[in-house]
This record gives sequence, structure tokens and C-alpha cells, in this order.
Amino acid sequence: MEHPKPDKTTALEVIQKKRDRGELTRDEIASFIRGYMASEVADYQVSAWLMAIYLNGMTSQETLALTRVMRDSGKVLNLSSIAARKIDKHSTGGVGDKTSLVVAPIAAACGVAVPMIAGRALGHTGGTLDKLESITGFNPRPSPEKIVEILKGAGAVLMGQTEDLAPADRCIYALRDVTATVESIPLITASILSKKLAEGIDGLVMDVKAGSGAFMPTLSMAAALARSIVDTCRSMKTKIVVLITDMEQPLGRAVGNALEIRECIDFLHGKTPEDLETVSMALAAQMIRLGGRARSMEAASKLAYEAVSKGEAAKKFREIIRAQGGNEGVVDDPGFLPKAAHVHRFRAKVEGFVTRCDAKRLGLASNSLGAGRYRVDDVIDPAVGLYVEKKLGDRVKQGDVLCQVHWNDPKRLRKALTLIEQAFEIQSRPAASRPLIHAVLEG
Amino acid sequence: MEHPKPDKTTALEVIQKKRDRGELTRDEIASFIRGYMASEVADYQVSAWLMAIYLNGMTSQETLALTRVMRDSGKVLNLSSIAARKIDKHSTGGVGDKTSLVVAPIAAACGVAVPMIAGRALGHTGGTLDKLESITGFNPRPSPEKIVEILKGAGAVLMGQTEDLAPADRCIYALRDVTATVESIPLITASILSKKLAEGIDGLVMDVKAGSGAFMPTLSMAAALARSIVDTCRSMKTKIVVLITDMEQPLGRAVGNALEIRECIDFLHGKTPEDLETVSMALAAQMIRLGGRARSMEAASKLAYEAVSKGEAAKKFREIIRAQGGNEGVVDDPGFLPKAAHVHRFRAKVEGFVTRCDAKRLGLASNSLGAGRYRVDDVIDPAVGLYVEKKLGDRVKQGDVLCQVHWNDPKRLRKALTLIEQAFEIQSRPAASRPLIHAVLEG
Repeated sequence: MEHPKPDKTTALEVIQKKRDRGELTRDEIASFIRGYMASEVADYQVSAWLMAIYLNGMTSQETLALTRVMRDSGKVLNLSSIAARKIDKHSTGGVGDKTSLVVAPIAAACGVAVPMIAGRALGHTGGTLDKLESITGFNPRPSPEKIVEILKGAGAVLMGQTEDLAPADRCIYALRDVTATVESIPLITASILSKKLAEGIDGLVMDVKAGSGAFMPTLSMAAALARSIVDTCRSMKTKIVVLITDMEQPLGRAVGNALEIRECIDFLHGKTPEDLETVSMALAAQMIRLGGRARSMEAASKLAYEAVSKGEAAKKFREIIRAQGGNEGVVDDPGFLPKAAHVHRFRAKVEGFVTRCDAKRLGLASNSLGAGRYRVDDVIDPAVGLYVEKKLGDRVKQGDVLCQVHWNDPKRLRKALTLIEQAFEIQSRPAASRPLIHAVLEG
Repeated sequence: MEHPKPDKTTALEVIQKKRDRGELTRDEIASFIRGYMASEVADYQVSAWLMAIYLNGMTSQETLALTRVMRDSGKVLNLSSIAARKIDKHSTGGVGDKTSLVVAPIAAACGVAVPMIAGRALGHTGGTLDKLESITGFNPRPSPEKIVEILKGAGAVLMGQTEDLAPADRCIYALRDVTATVESIPLITASILSKKLAEGIDGLVMDVKAGSGAFMPTLSMAAALARSIVDTCRSMKTKIVVLITDMEQPLGRAVGNALEIRECIDFLHGKTPEDLETVSMALAAQMIRLGGRARSMEAASKLAYEAVSKGEAAKKFREIIRAQGGNEGVVDDPGFLPKAAHVHRFRAKVEGFVTRCDAKRLGLASNSLGAGRYRVDDVIDPAVGLYVEKKLGDRVKQGDVLCQVHWNDPKRLRKALTLIEQAFEIQSRPAASRPLIHAVLEG
């Protein structure tokens, strides 16, 4: 009385099982995603499945299986010809979050190979690639051979995601974006790690942002994502350190592409806002340690500071820019960067303490000036943005400049000012201060 | 400091709101579904939304709004030229569930107008239209003018869903079918009622089936669906009665298209299994009462029985068949119906009481003989099916025929026998009997 059963669970059964809170096997997840990439599973089936995952979650074993099949959906970079350990750094995204641009040259200056895949502006956050394109000639798409060559020479490469790297992630991300399934811990984990692990890296330093300007607004969501990333990387035998850092207000003072590049150049010349220094140096030191260039965090941190003070990091940044076709002269003369035609000074109306300097609204303000995109085909204005002069806890007098607004288009200025107005709050007593680094997890 | 807000909630926001357990407004639901029908909202967005509804549910207000916009997605039949009250009867589907074929002529014989939209075989259940097509020449697609003409003459019309009746339901149902979002109370409610209310009816008698052979296996799910249907109809100002009836075993004895037509003809000639009579007469009496032809259930029931005993129902059935182009002679001579080449007798191996006569497995067995479809383009064999001789609680001796198997293809017979074997169980003591009508709800 045999009852023939198909070998493979069908797409419908995979959706059903997740819908009913079942735990999918590695094979079920793999055949579903492979079926999708082979156009045997339809996008409307995948989106229903993504919503079931959003609402019912995934176990760490399921997240691992999803990460693996997404990584293996395309090419995995072969960087075995590079002797140094390959360490990348990735951030979940924030406002004024320019740390990639300083930690890559610092870690490279300390002998770590940094094959960094960076992203574009998304929502209210900026994108490292958009910032780099403020530098004339910079090419974010070197060939695979060129990538290896740059890593052997400059030691770090800052590049965009290519078509053949984790293509399943690109397809799934596009669906999540239009089906309200973005903010899911297992889906974010698989999306980030499938790309990172396709880079052929030995270790990863993650900066998970928490706060109003982050995609994870609460600390508990950020902690859950950090835990999921650590668990998955550990199972994938990749070294991982996750820092949970604050994103209530912009990091540093500059928000906007060329303005941020200028702030990074100042950093590499030894001049930097304290918060940007603290977070960047913590990330760089972790990269140096994971890269095997120091045994302790103290030693790694010392190397990172020396790389800056001795000018080696700035030298590396010049090398990276040159290797990728950009005008390296910008590192010594930021005058090469595009400049906005006008600067408006947004001033305090009352005296007191800054109790809100809202990262999300300031990010949106910068974007509304032209620094970000509303549609994928919008053209970015690299010159515009903000320079935040007063931050959380700062004492201000009436008429003090809270924020410089670098603008080119008067209509856009008006919209930005509305958002900036909402971003700041001044009260008679300062609010409790938030730590800059909430937690460090290691896998 | 005005902050311009778009008038219409976007599709993404509608998905998000349901994902987060929010209650959607009537306008949000309407614009989402209209956007879908206008191809502005993509099918992958709708399927994510359907999964969110499946998992998070809908309030009765949301269900009502969805039903309304789905009904209004196409034409609503205008039956105002018909003086009699228009009452339809609908079943959620079962095995051997042929009540539509008897209640339509009975109610019509009692002066009720019955504009009945019937369906096709689905899964393990049979379809009224497939059964009717066992009758040579029967046309399930009369024109709108013809429908009115038939209703004025014969008083009942049995037709298929047309393209322009609730097209949103057809599109959404096709998506649900492949995204594991079928078994959802609000979605089932809106699907059934959007079609029924597009018929321009004054009242509806619903038969919600509960048991192994039903789409709602448990009584509590059936009750939840019944409640949802009653609430929605009441808000739509349509009279509604819902019977929750048992579907653990087939209703009546015949399962399969021509075999069921024959059983119906026997019924109209006064010869019927008791369970089929009980359920059909309860449904017919409700139709007669809602149709204003009797004030009490007792009076309505009396009219229904008289319609059969006086031969008026059989006469109406002849008229309906003739009006729709079929060979009415079948009502007097079931020999006109197609007959299978062979009859296999499936016998009891032991003596005792029938404690399982599983509707779902017997439905699947009948379908595997050729009575149903595995794919939409499968051709049905009208002659094949089962005739169940022993049912729950019946005492049997070893060698007694449990079930006749009417077959044409030996390979298909083998598969069917496996399922029939699993469908029956005989034990030394009878199981507790189940009521035939579990509940009656009225709106």
C-alpha cells in the first residue's frame, strides 16, 4: 500500500511549513531559493514566504541555511593569492556614518587586507560609494583581477556589489523592499552575510547601529541582530566581532557626500570630532586584531593611532584612490571636492542644552537637499549636506549656529529646513547622555 | 510647518499596517485592491499582504470592506425585473455533496427565484457544474439575458462564474492557491460573498461543512467561518442563514458526477438516503423561508416535502435542464447518463461496525478514478465514482460490499482501491455518532 511521495518538498509546502511555524530543513530552504533563481518558484510565492518569515521568524539553523544558499547563488571571490588576512567591516547604516572611509586605510596601513564591498544611499542613510564618487575619477567597479592587484598593492579596495556576487540576495532584497519585509532579523542577517562571505574574507567587523537614525531603532532589536550575525558567522567558520553603536544623532559633524569625505580627510590628518574618532578607532582596532596584526585590543588600538599620527593611513588613502582611478590630490587639498553654492546657518532660537539632534530627520534633510535618492535613478548632488555644529548635550546661546546647510536649490532648502527644525530640540536642562558603544559581541 | 502627506496610503504602507496588526480602513483596502486590478500593485505585494492577513487576521470591518471592493470589481447582476425574491444556496464544498442539485428545483417549485453560481471540482471535493455536465447538452454559461429569461420561466438557473463577476476574487484566489493562504476565515468569507453578492440576491443559505472531508476540518473553524459570513452579510443588508453540517463521511451514497446526478433524480422521485434528505430539506426550507414563501420553518419544510411528493420539483428540474440546453429526458430515464464499463465491489474483510468512512479519502479515490481534476486542464470522466453501501455506524458481516467502485481504467482503479482501503475502518463496537447538522446561525 505504498503512497508515492515526491522527493523534493514543493514550494507550496515550504511556504506552508513556515506559515505554520515549522522549522525548515537546509534542503527545503536551498531548493526553494534555487528554484526562485531558476524561475521555477515565482516572486509572489517568495514574497508570501518572506512575510511568513517576517512574522514567524527563523531559527539560527534556518538563518544559517538561508545565508549559505544565498552566498552560493553566485561567485565567491577567490582571494587565496593574498597572504594577509582579509578582514572587512560593515555597518547596518546610519547618518554621517563615514567610518568605512577611515578604517579601511588605517587597517590597510597596519597590514590587514580589506576587500570592502560598500553600498549606496538607502532611505535616510548615506552610502559609502556615493561619498567616494565625490572624488573625481573614482571607479567603484574594478575587475576581479584589478581587485586582487589593488589588495596586493594599496591593501584595501572599496567597491560596489557586482552582479555575480550573491545574486539571490539582490533579487530577494528587491522583493523585501516593496513588500514590507525589510526589518526582519534572519532576513537582514542572511542578506548582509551572504554578500560578505562571498568576498572570501577571513573575518568581519560589524557595526550594528541602534537609535532613531538606524534601521534598528531599539537596542533590543540591535542586540538580537548582533546575536544572529555572531551565531551565523561562527557556524560559517568566519571570525566575527559586532559593535553595537549609537545612532541617535549623526556620527561626526558632516552629513552629505563631499562634506563627509572632507571630514574623513581631516581625520586622517589628525583632526576629528571625538565621537567619530571613538567609533572608528574601536572598529579599526578590531580589524587589526582579527587580521592578526595585534594580540590585544590595546596593542591594536596603539597601531591604529600610530597609523594616523605617522601619516601612513593618509598615504594609504591616497594609494587606494589612485588605484581606483580617482584624484588622490584631494587628500592633501580638499579644495578639489565639489562645493555647494550657498551656506545657510540654522540658528538656535532659545538658549539651553541640545536635547535632540535627530539623526533620521537630519539624514532626510540632507537627502532632501540632493545628497540622497528618492528613486534609484535620481542623480546625487555631491556638494550639498549639513555640518552639525551643536550636538546632544551641547550648551547653546540664542543665535548660535546649530547646523550649517550647504545648498544649491532654494526649493530644496525650504524642505530641508522644515526637517532640520523638527530635528533639534533645546531645553533648559541637558538630557541623560547615551553611551557611544553599547556593546561588543564576539563569535 | 506643514508636512505634506499623500492622500492615498501607498501599497507598501497597507502591507506594513496589516503586518503590524493594524486595522485597515475601508479606503486603504479599496485602494489596494483597485490598485491590484489596475496593475499598479504587483502580485508579489498582494501575496505578502495575503500572508499577513492569514497570520494576523482581519476584523469584521476589514472583512466587510474587502468583500465589498471585491464584489464591486466587476459587474453586479441586475435581477430587479424578477418579482420573486432571489435566494441562492452555497456550500463550502464536500464529498457527495449534491444538495444544490435538489434544493434549486425544490425552492423554484415553491416560487423562489434561484440564481445559483456553482463551481468546479476542487481538491478532493466535487463540483456542481461538473456533475451537471454529465447531462448531454447542458450549458453552464447562459447569457445575462438568458439568465433572466430562465429565472422568469424555470425559476432557477445553475451557472458558472463569468469573467466579469467579481474578477478581483478570481485573481486573488489564484494567488492564494499557490502561496498557502487559502485557509483564512476573512479571505474565504470575502471570496464566497463577493461572488454571491454580485448575483444581485436578496438572501443566501450557506452550508458550511465541518469534518475530514471539508476544507474546515474542525467544528471551531467552521463556526468561526459561519460567524464571519453572518456578520458580513448582515452588514451588507443581505438575509443570511448558515447551517454547519457534517462532512466526516460522504453525504448520501453516490460520489462521482453521473452517479450523483442519478441519486438526485432518485431524490426528486422520492427515494433518497436519509442524511441527504435531512440536509437538503433543511437547506431548501431555509431558502423557501428567506424567499418569503413561508413564515415558519415548519411551513417551509412542509412546502419542500410537498414539492417532491407532488412531482413539482422533478418537473422544475426538467425545465431547468431544458432551459439550459440539456437532455431533460434524463429525469425520467437515468439510463441517458454515462455509465462506467466496470463495477468493482470493495468488501469488508472482517465483521463489526463501520467506525470510519473517511470523506476526504473517498473523495480522493473518486477523483483518482477520473471524477476530478489534478490540473485545471484535466478532462473529467463523468461515469466513474463510488457508491457507498455501508456508512458510519452500519453493522457489517465479512464479505459485505462496503462500496461499489465504478471504473474505466485498471491503473486508476488500483490507486483508488488503496485510498478506499484507508478510508474504511471496521471495529467490534460502533463509534459515537455525530450530528448531521451541528448548528444553524441566522443574520
